[in-house]
Amino acid sequence: MKKIINKPEDYTEEFVRGIIKAHSDQYKLLNDDYRMLIRSNSKDEPKVGIVTAGGSGHLPLFLGYVGENMLDGCAVGNVFASPSSSKMEELIRHCDSGKGVLCLYGNYGGDNLNFEMATEMVEFDDIETIQIRVKDDIASASEDKKDTRRGVAGIVYAYKIAGAAAGRGYDLEKVAEITNRALDNIRTMGVALSATIVPEVGEATFNISEDEIEIGMGIHGESGIEVRKMISADEIAEILVEKILTEIELSENDEVSVLINGLGATPLDEQYIVYNKVYDILDEKKVKIIQPHIGNFATSMEMSGLSITIFKLDSELKELLLEVASTPFYTNYNR
Amino acid sequence: MKKIINKPEDYTEEFVRGIIKAHSDQYKLLNDDYRMLIRSNSKDEPKVGIVTAGGSGHLPLFLGYVGENMLDGCAVGNVFASPSSSKMEELIRHCDSGKGVLCLYGNYGGDNLNFEMATEMVEFDDIETIQIRVKDDIASASEDKKDTRRGVAGIVYAYKIAGAAAGRGYDLEKVAEITNRALDNIRTMGVALSATIVPEVGEATFNISEDEIEIGMGIHGESGIEVRKMISADEIAEILVEKILTEIELSENDEVSVLINGLGATPLDEQYIVYNKVYDILDEKKVKIIQPHIGNFATSMEMSGLSITIFKLDSELKELLLEVASTPFYTNYNR
Repeated sequence: MKKIINKPEDYTEEFVRGIIKAHSDQYKLLNDDYRMLIRSNSKDEPKVGIVTAGGSGHLPLFLGYVGENMLDGCAVGNVFASPSSSKMEELIRHCDSGKGVLCLYGNYGGDNLNFEMATEMVEFDDIETIQIRVKDDIASASEDKKDTRRGVAGIVYAYKIAGAAAGRGYDLEKVAEITNRALDNIRTMGVALSATIVPEVGEATFNISEDEIEIGMGIHGESGIEVRKMISADEIAEILVEKILTEIELSENDEVSVLINGLGATPLDEQYIVYNKVYDILDEKKVKIIQPHIGNFATSMEMSGLSITIFKLDSELKELLLEVASTPFYTNYNR
Repeated sequence: MKKIINKPEDYTEEFVRGIIKAHSDQYKLLNDDYRMLIRSNSKDEPKVGIVTAGGSGHLPLFLGYVGENMLDGCAVGNVFASPSSSKMEELIRHCDSGKGVLCLYGNYGGDNLNFEMATEMVEFDDIETIQIRVKDDIASASEDKKDTRRGVAGIVYAYKIAGAAAGRGYDLEKVAEITNRALDNIRTMGVALSATIVPEVGEATFNISEDEIEIGMGIHGESGIEVRKMISADEIAEILVEKILTEIELSENDEVSVLINGLGATPLDEQYIVYNKVYDILDEKKVKIIQPHIGNFATSMEMSGLSITIFKLDSELKELLLEVASTPFYTNYNR
């Protein structure tokens, strides 16, 4: 196994230690626990708290989005494993300033179950919560089963919108309403070219042949919808955008944001080559792209591949998207 | 070959097209040429111009550092190939506002030769230039031959310092003096775990075995100083830092910045695991780290591996490092 690590069982704690040492101006641990990360520079003004949780192995997801006008805290699991409900519970308690807490996370069994338990526990103390599960991956189930779809890179837009709405002082109901509206207009689809290796496993749990590509593969290696011979960047862009646009209707003068997400090992160059084509496809439809996001936002360690997310905007969502935000891994100062 | 590209010969132009489409608020082409990129949002106040150039395949290097308080322009070559002297010349002419131009680039044969010619050409029109070649890679030659060393990730600190100095309105001599002082205090060393594939070649031009690591390999695959069996993250940190510290003397209370640079395919998690150890090594010496940089700053497409750069600061260099800077690929707003 060729990874730059120490003991596999120390993987998660060690990278969180590194992150805390590098970014103590913005991050700190809750209760000295390397599985709960909160802001060190938050203001004391009451606002709706936004928390998330998830397995590690996806940096900058999930903890990388804790910061100004984004998330207030994140519970960190082992690689590809949900953190415990008790950590989520502690985090929710900490992030409640009397205005309630939005639990915003990807739609995965472990996270669902644990957030369910955590929110029930805090209810006894009258902490109000709303849960929103992100289900943007259209390859993971057909539209009639969309409640079972997994959350992937589109969650970054959800964090951005929810965080900006909470930052404006909106109440919990309104933050949740806006976030849900954003998610109704966010769809993602990806391709994978190579597998990833879970440190404690030590080898790839599946393989993709040297001349093949898997369309719709999940970020944990979940099966996609089609394995085919390697195709060009333009063809990838066409296939993914076409599929996304079966669920997001776009007309002339509509505005969208586009996120090209590298899965880990795919060079930025290739991501921009794909963006170049996505831009042309949308430009031909006279659709305008606002603040594109191109880079590694939700990875699967050394997996090779990328996903495309399209987020259809209305005027309020556009304003919230353009709001200032700042974390050690995500900065939005350029309007 | 498993790359998300179209025709290999279109690789560079297509990713530059994507970048221009994504970031037209900050970037534009000079003379509609996809090999010359300048700022679209620069102020008109006269200042020392800072330009660079280099082969592509290293994003965010080189063009990614064009922006506020960083570079004014970049000439873009084919993958791993220097752009022509005539592009450099045009760029220098454009970026001169009467205060002269600093040409700041990595120490590679083609770039050296072409900048040499370009600066001679503009001299006829009384455009003052100073050339500074970055030679931070200590693995590329011994200390007595350090003028032959290659430039690698440490160039990012040089851009930051030169850009901030020019932004303060310093004259060309002073910007160059400060940049040279910074470079005297910057050293880099890296390891590679896997090769990269030049699109037009279509296959790796060398290989590293599945259980081996090459210490000191260059970002174009230049031979390093030692091939050995895979070692742990902590050992890598120890070897690289120890070697760097033979040339950078550190005492209690000294301040440094540390850059952990992913070469392309190495997950952020692993980079932070290495940073965790580097921090401990320096902390034990009571050396303080200012604004660490951790991420992919100077890559070699899908190469796997990382480098460590240490930059010893004095009070002026520290101030310039902390100055605001903003490009689509590099943001420094957090002090």
